[in-house]
Amino acid sequence: MAARLCRLRRPLTAAFSSAAAAGAGQAPPAEPLTERRQAGGVRTIVLNNPRRRNALSLPMLQSLRRDLLHDVKSRELRVIVIAAEGPVFCSGHDLKELSSEDDVKHHSQVFELCAEDHVFLNFPTHHCLLCMQVMTLIQKLPVPVIAKVNGLATAAGCQLVASCDIAVASEKSQFATPGVNIGLFCSTPAVALGRSLPRKVALEMLFTGEPLSAHEALMHGLVSKVVPEDKLEEETMKISQKICESSKSVLALGKATFYRQITQDLDTAYKITTKVMVDNLTLRDGQEGIEAFVQKRKPVWSHSQEEKK
Amino acid sequence: MAARLCRLRRPLTAAFSSAAAAGAGQAPPAEPLTERRQAGGVRTIVLNNPRRRNALSLPMLQSLRRDLLHDVKSRELRVIVIAAEGPVFCSGHDLKELSSEDDVKHHSQVFELCAEDHVFLNFPTHHCLLCMQVMTLIQKLPVPVIAKVNGLATAAGCQLVASCDIAVASEKSQFATPGVNIGLFCSTPAVALGRSLPRKVALEMLFTGEPLSAHEALMHGLVSKVVPEDKLEEETMKISQKICESSKSVLALGKATFYRQITQDLDTAYKITTKVMVDNLTLRDGQEGIEAFVQKRKPVWSHSQEEKK
Amino acid sequence: MAARLCRLRRPLTAAFSSAAAAGAGQAPPAEPLTERRQAGGVRTIVLNNPRRRNALSLPMLQSLRRDLLHDVKSRELRVIVIAAEGPVFCSGHDLKELSSEDDVKHHSQVFELCAEDHVFLNFPTHHCLLCMQVMTLIQKLPVPVIAKVNGLATAAGCQLVASCDIAVASEKSQFATPGVNIGLFCSTPAVALGRSLPRKVALEMLFTGEPLSAHEALMHGLVSKVVPEDKLEEETMKISQKICESSKSVLALGKATFYRQITQDLDTAYKITTKVMVDNLTLRDGQEGIEAFVQKRKPVWSHSQEEKK
Repeated sequence: MAARLCRLRRPLTAAFSSAAAAGAGQAPPAEPLTERRQAGGVRTIVLNNPRRRNALSLPMLQSLRRDLLHDVKSRELRVIVIAAEGPVFCSGHDLKELSSEDDVKHHSQVFELCAEDHVFLNFPTHHCLLCMQVMTLIQKLPVPVIAKVNGLATAAGCQLVASCDIAVASEKSQFATPGVNIGLFCSTPAVALGRSLPRKVALEMLFTGEPLSAHEALMHGLVSKVVPEDKLEEETMKISQKICESSKSVLALGKATFYRQITQDLDTAYKITTKVMVDNLTLRDGQEGIEAFVQKRKPVWSHSQEEKK
Repeated sequence: MAARLCRLRRPLTAAFSSAAAAGAGQAPPAEPLTERRQAGGVRTIVLNNPRRRNALSLPMLQSLRRDLLHDVKSRELRVIVIAAEGPVFCSGHDLKELSSEDDVKHHSQVFELCAEDHVFLNFPTHHCLLCMQVMTLIQKLPVPVIAKVNGLATAAGCQLVASCDIAVASEKSQFATPGVNIGLFCSTPAVALGRSLPRKVALEMLFTGEPLSAHEALMHGLVSKVVPEDKLEEETMKISQKICESSKSVLALGKATFYRQITQDLDTAYKITTKVMVDNLTLRDGQEGIEAFVQKRKPVWSHSQEEKK
Repeated sequence: MAARLCRLRRPLTAAFSSAAAAGAGQAPPAEPLTERRQAGGVRTIVLNNPRRRNALSLPMLQSLRRDLLHDVKSRELRVIVIAAEGPVFCSGHDLKELSSEDDVKHHSQVFELCAEDHVFLNFPTHHCLLCMQVMTLIQKLPVPVIAKVNGLATAAGCQLVASCDIAVASEKSQFATPGVNIGLFCSTPAVALGRSLPRKVALEMLFTGEPLSAHEALMHGLVSKVVPEDKLEEETMKISQKICESSKSVLALGKATFYRQITQDLDTAYKITTKVMVDNLTLRDGQEGIEAFVQKRKPVWSHSQEEKK
């Protein structure tokens, strides 16, 4: 039963191999859990398990990570959009999946302890670590990552939105961290929420589980844009295409620097960024940008991380 | 005279014993400075000295602290609401009280130096330390604390609102830090304001003393909800009752973790919270929550901090 | 050519002496790059090179710094307003100037390496360091600094707004960090933006270069007040005059303390400010404020940093 979830012991490999089938219970899912398509520099990753409310099951997290990392250094990839199929953007950790009465036998095999480097990690720990990895991976990617939200984002699904660099939401979208309802406080989502929202707003969400509307999310900074549902695709593409007009290497340097400086004190932050400004100027595309400006022509980016010789 | 307030010397005990009578000048106050009532898990503490604009005098701070800490581990206590009697929620440090011409003789006894561990602390330092203690105590309590504001909150009163976990305000409420007007910059309130508001908004308040309206306070994150005055009780109770539906032990773990992780860097914050998620799952109520979810029934919380055996 | 900007070597003195003329190309500018006027405690510094969109050239930065620091300890100076001539508040680093085809020869002399303490600094580094110095200087000044924005503030111009203590903007004002368009990510402006705006809003600005409207800037905390254009002067003066009613020494102590405590953890912040509250009370104007309050009269500030004997 679910209640045993920290006490059964089996090698993690079993969890992993069975996990591949977790989307549908016994058989591997007919459709992949995420769908990846790419055109004109924009990669769209669609969470594609609407029947399970796009829950972040282990296989979903693995599929998302794979799609985020796929050929990430390619000059063809310039921005990533995370979208979702169905009325729920993402419902967080796969509690529905974990707790369905039908699947108890299956899950009794999934809730395992694993031995890794002589450290015993149980299933939830492993799940949490993978989830944390995906959330922090987003900030480490060399391209901007945009959450395109059209519906409900809850718990780790809300954390996923908060962890993206940019978030565009339709007016009907909602954001909640309802873990308290099932006795599991959204402590990991709180890490991302607490860094995206005023403290009181984050705590009211966490303590009550009640949702924030799209407009409240915009007012408080959880998302950076709210548009009517029928403009969501257009607005997301407008932002994506604007990003595609810039140099990948310049954006990569800028993104990495932003997250590096933001936790520093002011003097350290300025020391870091002053050095980066000069590094930026020595980049091939830093030089090209200024030359193009001088010559009043459109720049032709190399997207190369090399310095101009 | 007030101007002497850092130079008179007397043992602190004197300050403390005389302080009990400070609310009314010579005689002990007929009514307690704060009123505590509790029903259905919700403790309401009412600042109850409207004649003094609910100023945070030493006895008021002591009374508030007492009410906050009273039987705080009881399973019957699940959320605390701080409200106020009269048109002023709280006017901060008791300058009116301290400076009334009538009370000069009385206060010349209150402004004392005290010997504590061979360190001499004067009255303002002692007052500040107690105030700081109450403000930081709020975050350390195992239950959510909600400020229910219906009127003006100034100086340390504004700090009190900023220090609560959640704040609900009526539309007519206002927030100000007018210390500059009497030559005493609101530096301790600035600690809480600077962590609740954008820097420019906080500094404009601090430099000018001018008030923020309730809607501005909401937009900028100082409060998490604004409602018409006649809905204030209803909205506060709605939030309180939602909190009462959850497990006390889960909320306590979540609250403590939130404040612990929020000042850390991202990796450390995730390390802390990942561990907490697993601890949460081993709590009796963590297990009960998931079992109830599996069994499609309402969870029955124990509110116990013990792990399930 | 501009592309050579990090490779030419010449003593910085050349850059400095030629820089004096950079505003107009060959000849020294007829008008000063900034205009300083002072009345009733309010110093207004006007960026006054509208033809160059008030770009932060080296001479502009030097002129601004000079005007900020001029007789800054005088009791006559109580608040500084940074305003601008023309439709652009400030366009950031002087790329237009640096890259104009006509001025190539001139600038080939400006883009120099300099030897300072045996460390070679090239021109952009020097420029960045001066810019950083001016931005951080604003926070170190003993008087509040208000940005009065009526138009477009971009790149380091946007950073200048973000670096002020208070910012008032007209409704038509806009804020952008379009460095990505010319291959130069606004990494130093990102330091100030990342501390004034929610992360997602800051990153969308930085990644796309698209502007924020005045109302968005207010909602997200980049500015503290937005008014119709014809009320901008009135509103700025209202705030300035309110500040002039307070004691300079009290404001100076408060401002320095605010920035000192804001990066600390909560306990340290309260330790710092508790001590400052007591120091404030011993200031001549701290005592005068309370005495005036007791005596129900207007305080007469000395603005002196001395303690009352």
